[in-house]
Amino acid sequence: MHNLNLKEQFSNVHEYFSPKVIGRVNNEFVKLVKIQGDRVPWHYHEESDELFYIIEGSLKMEVNRSNFIMNPGDLFIVKKGINHRVSSTGECLIMLIEHETTLHTGNIVSEITKTIYEQQ
Amino acid sequence: MHNLNLKEQFSNVHEYFSPKVIGRVNNEFVKLVKIQGDRVPWHYHEESDELFYIIEGSLKMEVNRSNFIMNPGDLFIVKKGINHRVSSTGECLIMLIEHETTLHTGNIVSEITKTIYEQQ
Repeated sequence: MHNLNLKEQFSNVHEYFSPKVIGRVNNEFVKLVKIQGDRVPWHYHEESDELFYIIEGSLKMEVNRSNFIMNPGDLFIVKKGINHRVSSTGECLIMLIEHETTLHTGNIVSEITKTIYEQQ
Repeated sequence: MHNLNLKEQFSNVHEYFSPKVIGRVNNEFVKLVKIQGDRVPWHYHEESDELFYIIEGSLKMEVNRSNFIMNPGDLFIVKKGINHRVSSTGECLIMLIEHETTLHTGNIVSEITKTIYEQQ
């Protein structure tokens, strides 16, 4: 039984672009990830939605042909099949909620791709 | 396509103890709820987990025979079958993630129980 403070949990997250599972709610994993830069490729998740919630910093979210900046306290759900890419100039701390079957880089395997085993 | 700031979204939440669906990620609803007081009965969700994330204020979480205070930025997942109750002395703003089939007061129907239709 753990009450987790998300900011504090980032003391366990050492690598950029490497999601870490901190919990599970039904068939979804709750993950923390920190990013800096633009190493995430354009990708989509064919069968599942993906929730982004910003904890610290700013995130540039690109979806199809539009883009916007997300700030702390902002939430956005990328629906399945939607092509997207995220990046940040400074460090950005994010909570993700993703289906247990979701590969975090979706249909693309890139240098940053981690298996679900590497995320635990 | 909406980038939602959770605190701002509470301008649409007028009633205490009345969860409002703001999104869906796969088979889970993302809901906002504000509470003040102790009108939530002890209950459990037989088949599904429930995620609590504190946005503003403090929440007293009671689970089985233990209890703790949750503050902004804190996350806790009540696993299925676990008896729990939440309360707060001041106003507390919460994000919930619940399975689409979950009744927010679980196995108990009380004066605060809202159907999923009343939550949209």
